Order: sequence, then C-alpha cells, then structure tokens
Amino acid sequence: MATNGVNGHAAEGAPPKPSHRFDPDFTRNVVENMGPATTERNRFVLGALVKHIHDFTREVELTMDEWMEGVKFVNQLGEIYTKSNHTRNETHRICDILGLESLVDEIAHKIIAEGDIDPTSSSILGPFWSPNAPFRELGESIMQDGVPPKGQVTKMHGVIRDIITGQPIPGAVFDIWQASANGKYDFQDPENQTPNNLRGKFRADANGRYELYCLHPTAYSLPRDGPSWQLLTMMDRHPMRPAHIHIMVTHPEFQGCTTQLYPNTDEWLTTDTVFAVKPDLVVDFKPLTGDAKGATLELEYNVNLAPKGYKGKL
Amino acid sequence: MATNGVNGHAAEGAPPKPSHRFDPDFTRNVVENMGPATTERNRFVLGALVKHIHDFTREVELTMDEWMEGVKFVNQLGEIYTKSNHTRNETHRICDILGLESLVDEIAHKIIAEGDIDPTSSSILGPFWSPNAPFRELGESIMQDGVPPKGQVTKMHGVIRDIITGQPIPGAVFDIWQASANGKYDFQDPENQTPNNLRGKFRADANGRYELYCLHPTAYSLPRDGPSWQLLTMMDRHPMRPAHIHIMVTHPEFQGCTTQLYPNTDEWLTTDTVFAVKPDLVVDFKPLTGDAKGATLELEYNVNLAPKGYKGKL
Repeated sequence: MATNGVNGHAAEGAPPKPSHRFDPDFTRNVVENMGPATTERNRFVLGALVKHIHDFTREVELTMDEWMEGVKFVNQLGEIYTKSNHTRNETHRICDILGLESLVDEIAHKIIAEGDIDPTSSSILGPFWSPNAPFRELGESIMQDGVPPKGQVTKMHGVIRDIITGQPIPGAVFDIWQASANGKYDFQDPENQTPNNLRGKFRADANGRYELYCLHPTAYSLPRDGPSWQLLTMMDRHPMRPAHIHIMVTHPEFQGCTTQLYPNTDEWLTTDTVFAVKPDLVVDFKPLTGDAKGATLELEYNVNLAPKGYKGKL
Repeated sequence: MATNGVNGHAAEGAPPKPSHRFDPDFTRNVVENMGPATTERNRFVLGALVKHIHDFTREVELTMDEWMEGVKFVNQLGEIYTKSNHTRNETHRICDILGLESLVDEIAHKIIAEGDIDPTSSSILGPFWSPNAPFRELGESIMQDGVPPKGQVTKMHGVIRDIITGQPIPGAVFDIWQASANGKYDFQDPENQTPNNLRGKFRADANGRYELYCLHPTAYSLPRDGPSWQLLTMMDRHPMRPAHIHIMVTHPEFQGCTTQLYPNTDEWLTTDTVFAVKPDLVVDFKPLTGDAKGATLELEYNVNLAPKGYKGKL
C-alpha cells in the first residue's frame, strides 16, 4: 500500500494520520470480552453501559485525578449508607439530582390512554418511602404525633377509578407519606417524630373513595452535608424540592401508581432539584371552614389507574 | 398544519408521531439547570456525564428494577470499602474490569516521541500500590520474607533514560510491587507476608542503573466474593490477570511512568480481565546460572522517560 501512492502520506514515508486519537479497537475489545453465557439483556445493557462510559471518558478526556475523585465519590456514597445503618441512601439521591430516577420512571410508566380518562402521571419514589406504614381507618389523620408548629391541616379525599371503564376501584390501597412542617420525614427526625408519623395506608371504600387528614406540605432542602450536596455545589444548583405529598396507589388488578402532588403556589415548581414535577400533578389546596376535625384546607384528588397489562396507544 | 395536508396523519385527525419516544427536552433541562458559578470544566464534564447517562438509560429502556439493582450495587461497593477499613477498593476494581482505568491511562499518557527512543508505555496503577514502600539498597531483594514456596528468584536490572537525549537519569526512583507466588499482595495476605513484603523503592546510580531481586510473577484471580466478581459473572468473563510486575518510575524533572511488565509466556495476555497489556510491556525472562544470590532468571528492562512538559508529536 505504501508504494502504490494511494495514500499520499504513506508514500512519503510518514504514517497515515489516525482517524481516532485513541485506540479505535479498545471499546469493542472490552464489549466482546463478554462470554457466550451472558444473557441477551445483560449483553445489551452492559455493552451499552461500557460504550457510554468509554465515549464519555474520551469525549471529555477525563484526567487521572478526575477519575480518582470519581472513585472516592462512589466510595463515599456507600460509606454513608453503611454508617447510617442503611437509612441514608445518597446513591439514590445522586440518581435523583441527575434526573435518572425521573427518566427511569418516565420509561416505565409511559401510557397514553385510549379512553377519555388519562392515567395519573407517575413520579419518583424517592428515598423516604417505608414498607412499614400502618393501615389507618378512612377519615383518620396521618398526623400520629399531632399538628406540628406551623402545620396547616388539610382534609384530602377523592376517588380511585379505572381509566377504561371510569368505574371506582373498591379496596384500592392509598399509601401516603410526607415530611413534617420542618421539612423532615420521621426517620430523619427521631427527636420530634415517632416512627410512621405522617405515613399511612387507607383502603378505598365500596365507592372507590378515600378520605384522610394530612398536612399542607412544606418545601425542603436536600441534606447539605453529603456527596449529593457536594455535587449540587459543583453544578451551582439549589437543593430545594418543591412542597409535595407522596402517594402510592395499588390494587392487585391494576398497574400501581407512585407519584407526588405539588401545591400550585410553590416557588420551586419549575426548578425542582430532582426533576419530578409534571403538570397534572400540580394541585389546588382550597380554603375550608367549619371542618369538625379542624382542617383549614381541602384537597380533592382523584387517581386514575390502568388495568394490569394495558399498554395504551404506544 | 393539520389542514394543509402536508402531514397526512394530522390531516386525518391523528396526532403526529413523536420523533422521540420520551420527553425530548428532559436532558437539556437537567444540563441547563447548572448555574453560572459552575466552572467551565465542571459544566463540560458533568454535562457530558448527564447526557451519556440519559442516552444509555433511554437506549436500553432501563427498568425500575434494573436501576434499583444498580443503586444497591453502588452501595455495596462503598460498604465493602468501609468494612474493610478502606483496604478493599471494589469501586476501583469495577473501573478496571470495565476498561475505564486503562482508558484514562491511555488518555493521560499518549506521547509519540519525536526522537528514536519511545517512552515506556504506561499501564494502570491498580488498587495495590502503597505509598509506604521502603527504600532499599541497589542490588537488594524485595523478598523481605524470603523466597515463598514455588517462587522463582529473578535478577532484574536496567537503565532509566531520557527519551530526548538518550542519556541516563541518575537518582530516578524505581518503585516496584508484586504479588507473591500465591497470587496475593502483602495486605491481602497478613498470615504469610509482613507489611511491605515484595515492595521496594530503588534509587538509580550515577549511570541511571537499577538492580534488584524479585519473583517471576504469578497470574492471579481477582477476588471471587464481591461486586466485581458478580459483574464478571453477569458478563460471563474470567477473573484472571496475567502474571505481572508493577513499576512506577519517577524523577522531579521527568514525567513519571506507572506501568506493568508481563512475562511473554503467560496464557492470559490476550484476555487480561482489566485490559492493561500493551505490546512493549511484554518481556522475556531469561534463564540465569551461577548467580551469587541464587536467581535462576534474569530480566533486563530499560525505562524511557520524557522530560516534564514534553508533549511529543501529538
């Protein structure tokens, strides 16, 4: 080839200019090192992961120091998880502030309904859901420890419906959890809250109705003393989540819905630090007078579930 | 647009097919959430990181369960690091088996020399280097605990040279570390090895020469009881590293070289589980007879360093 003049450089004795600044075979070698017993899904997911990690690394020409900072950062995540006795999941939180949990949620729950009723949009679970929340009676309060200072009592109610038939779903479980008026969840705040304060599960009645008392939610900051705060600082971002109530609504015959509801008056709606706000999740808390249990606000919220196996128009 | 017939679907009342299955603005919103005080480099690196994480996630349509497995996996990495008192760095090892450390190393050390002498190729540091290795006298052995069972004593020597002038570099520090004949480094093997066994630093003489006694290295397996073994199993890959000797050669006026040397007889050279073998690092251990200190093998290896600031032809 060097003697036939097709490659001008080679004919003149200089090596041809490489088309790729770095070893062009390296990534393929790593991916193809996977053996025949890898599952199809693992080959696909891990192969794509390796390609993106390598492309990112070449694209930014990641330095040794930056890579080592990254290794330290990852180790810090698991160190906090370990030392907090598995209650502080900064790894989960890092995924949230990078938008990853919201994106996975979008991928998992994209349904465009064929009927008139849209399914309730999902939103991220976040790190504060507990599998141990107790069942409470319809009409009860989740304020197990009473109304906290500055807390505004809200009567919340609605119907859980089937998006296909529009019919109520009796027996659906409405699981709700929220931070207290100081912006902290029970397990972040053992000095002020007993376990399961501001958590509860309610079983919808024969008409698919639920009713409970909760707090108007309060905006809060992510913790400012760990790796996620370090990352937010590097990105010059605020750590605020808009005020929200978490709900998870389930029934054996329906696709569950995990989501969050946001008061329409919140100042952080458009810059939520975990990118979890969607338009149909922004709600109106209305003034209420004369409530027997002292609520000064009312929130009516209906939840629409798709039957299991329903894929919608996509 | 719907009435002019350009888009057939729209003219017939159906919505136009989205060009992007998921929210096309999501990733840009996350990236643009970075504030004005982010450094240029952080904006560039973290922006690229977010884009690649999101692209990967959409490309494979990562499921909630897969993402949660990933979160658990990352937490396990830091948990092992914490519980091993920071001696077992599985995060570093995961980077190695994904080829990331080798790639970062390639990016950091790509020099094409202008003169006749090529600089010694670098290779990855790995998780076993120690800052505490003692200085030893030229001609001494690093086998502080004596020759282990099945160990083959090797006399290793060479010259450390300047790639520009070809002149020796007196006073250069030659730092060497290796696993014992059982495949374990000192801090993995406290029952058989004292701290700093098979580690040592040597200062080159006035002629840039170093000389020492070490072991012919032994191939070994990465640990088979942690997250990196779990990942290798998912990928149906073997955990073997070819036999190697680690070296790190430094001098205040030269660019340091961290690398590994591999016997040319090793069976794992082409499938190294951390992708760290390069052709000029594969060496020939020659038989030796009559050595006063009992070596039965000889390895001559010259190291070529580039002066600080030298960029070569790139």
